[in-house]
Amino acid sequence: MLELKVDLGERSYPIFIGSGLYTGNSRAELLKPYIKGQQVAIVTNETIAPLYLEQVRSMLEGFELIEVILPDGEEYKSLSVLEQVFDGLLRARHTRKTTLIALGGGVVGDMTGFAAAAYQRGVDFIQIPTTLLSQVDSSVGGKTGVNHPLGKNMIGAFHQPNVVLIDIDSLSTLPGREFSAGVAEVIKYGLICDRDFYQWLQSNIDRVMARDQEALTYAIHRSCSDKAWVVAEDEKESGLRAILNLGHTFGHAIETHTGYGEWLHGEAVAAGMVMAAELSCRLGHIGREEVRDVVDMLKTACLPIEPPEDMSSEQFIELMSIDKKVLDGKLRLVLLEQIGKAFVTDQFDRSVLDEMLQDMCRV
Amino acid sequence: MLELKVDLGERSYPIFIGSGLYTGNSRAELLKPYIKGQQVAIVTNETIAPLYLEQVRSMLEGFELIEVILPDGEEYKSLSVLEQVFDGLLRARHTRKTTLIALGGGVVGDMTGFAAAAYQRGVDFIQIPTTLLSQVDSSVGGKTGVNHPLGKNMIGAFHQPNVVLIDIDSLSTLPGREFSAGVAEVIKYGLICDRDFYQWLQSNIDRVMARDQEALTYAIHRSCSDKAWVVAEDEKESGLRAILNLGHTFGHAIETHTGYGEWLHGEAVAAGMVMAAELSCRLGHIGREEVRDVVDMLKTACLPIEPPEDMSSEQFIELMSIDKKVLDGKLRLVLLEQIGKAFVTDQFDRSVLDEMLQDMCRV
Repeated sequence: MLELKVDLGERSYPIFIGSGLYTGNSRAELLKPYIKGQQVAIVTNETIAPLYLEQVRSMLEGFELIEVILPDGEEYKSLSVLEQVFDGLLRARHTRKTTLIALGGGVVGDMTGFAAAAYQRGVDFIQIPTTLLSQVDSSVGGKTGVNHPLGKNMIGAFHQPNVVLIDIDSLSTLPGREFSAGVAEVIKYGLICDRDFYQWLQSNIDRVMARDQEALTYAIHRSCSDKAWVVAEDEKESGLRAILNLGHTFGHAIETHTGYGEWLHGEAVAAGMVMAAELSCRLGHIGREEVRDVVDMLKTACLPIEPPEDMSSEQFIELMSIDKKVLDGKLRLVLLEQIGKAFVTDQFDRSVLDEMLQDMCRV
Repeated sequence: MLELKVDLGERSYPIFIGSGLYTGNSRAELLKPYIKGQQVAIVTNETIAPLYLEQVRSMLEGFELIEVILPDGEEYKSLSVLEQVFDGLLRARHTRKTTLIALGGGVVGDMTGFAAAAYQRGVDFIQIPTTLLSQVDSSVGGKTGVNHPLGKNMIGAFHQPNVVLIDIDSLSTLPGREFSAGVAEVIKYGLICDRDFYQWLQSNIDRVMARDQEALTYAIHRSCSDKAWVVAEDEKESGLRAILNLGHTFGHAIETHTGYGEWLHGEAVAAGMVMAAELSCRLGHIGREEVRDVVDMLKTACLPIEPPEDMSSEQFIELMSIDKKVLDGKLRLVLLEQIGKAFVTDQFDRSVLDEMLQDMCRV
């Protein structure tokens, strides 16, 4: 088992990463020091409950325990579904000393975190992320929230967990496409800020894809550590946090064009990262060979490396222009200065972007 | 105009109290320094909009302005009505640089504050409270939130305003019962922590009730200042904040017994303060003459000084036992050590409480 401390002063917390973390009472000591009262509410969804709820429950003997089981899917990440969590807490008369546990992927984590931020103006919570994406993304940063029909993650709060428990065994039941989508974000960390990790991935991507326990534990630890570094740097207002969006502006355009749910978020980000790498190459930052390496690694991870077949360069430009990250009408992109170092800019030759899009789009 | 600075380190803000504060553009400089972006959303309700919206709007010339008008009443202080605020903000594409302005009483203030806390994980907000109760209560403390069918104020956040603008002219349209309910909280501040103010009130309660501008301005300033002191002391975890609940445990029992809305909150608190004073007297803390003075002042403020006619001492005990402030089964009460100094205790002779209730209840 590896441990990572996310350093946020008074709000610091550990992330435990390993195998067999929630098989029975023997591991209960990983959770118990982080639960201050007697009341605990596990929030999970219909897919995860039959798989892991019993195991997590077995770690919590002696607590006054309730469970809230939400429907599974991004479309349920809403204020009205959130009410089910508040209903459960209030019916069981949970006080402000309760602890909420999020058991599931990013949707469960974001919703439970926001419920914990808002219930009686703030109670404790614990993250047990069960998808690779949520393990490497939602574990660090404290962003919680729900969607609104007019925008994703528009209602929320910053709320840090007391502890994050990442059991890589839960990845054994994760469908292949979702696993790959998580790997896209893992590769992203190497690209944006960690050249050594990127080189490790080049040698070990096969082991990661085979879900080798040791390789996965290392890759998740390193990803969380990289994200923690970026987020901590940004507290000094360097604006560095934006580099976490490598591939996301192109990716969001793809998601919007195809309709949410058609492409997984990580898949759209993968194609978007290829486009960002290609643009970085054409602007003279990285070499052609390096772009090819990125493409190869994403291919090995069974991820898409091209935009959707029916998407035109004009559609990209249009959708990217309404992305919320556009400031004052200027398109800002995350590009690679080199492998392992990203930067954000709105100062680039627009014609190079247009040409790249025309070359990469088939229509 | 008086100014009070609420000192919260980085989150400090001023409260401006006076007459004619939002009559036209000349006073715009009271607001403008506290609005950082170009977008402003005024949130108000159907009752207040026709009275003051136009005036406040006139202070905001040049801003990109929207208005959200909510239905009036505690029953609309819900998560689903809150969605109307988010709808308005998103439809007008308000970014995280928007500023929300709460124009109304406590319900509008609490809801708008919570909307500001949650919109895009936190935006600025400004309070323009229009009822006496919200001016002396919600202006300080940062508590925001909505009700849940199973409990009041169960969903919310701590979120401080950038500035609070209290125009006492808005009290001219406040119905008499609501004005008196606000005066109950004003008297409360004198009783719990400010003997000088209490004595001032003894000499000036008639001027306050006549809504004399100078007296009102002073009373509101002093109340906010007292609350700010109590809240600041409590940040040092002295537990002092609980004294703000003088009369509230008895008062909540009255509200629950009569059904919410029958007695105004301030009316129930007034009768509750008489009961707390009476109990404090019987326990030897304050004199009989002092209880009589409290009763006289509340009478002058047209407030009830006795529990509801149909309420028995057994009903009080039962309802007080399920109050959320009961810890570990022990009834905690706020009592008066002397006029101008309250304390919280669960150590008192229970038979004295029972006798007091039997004597004060008519059935």
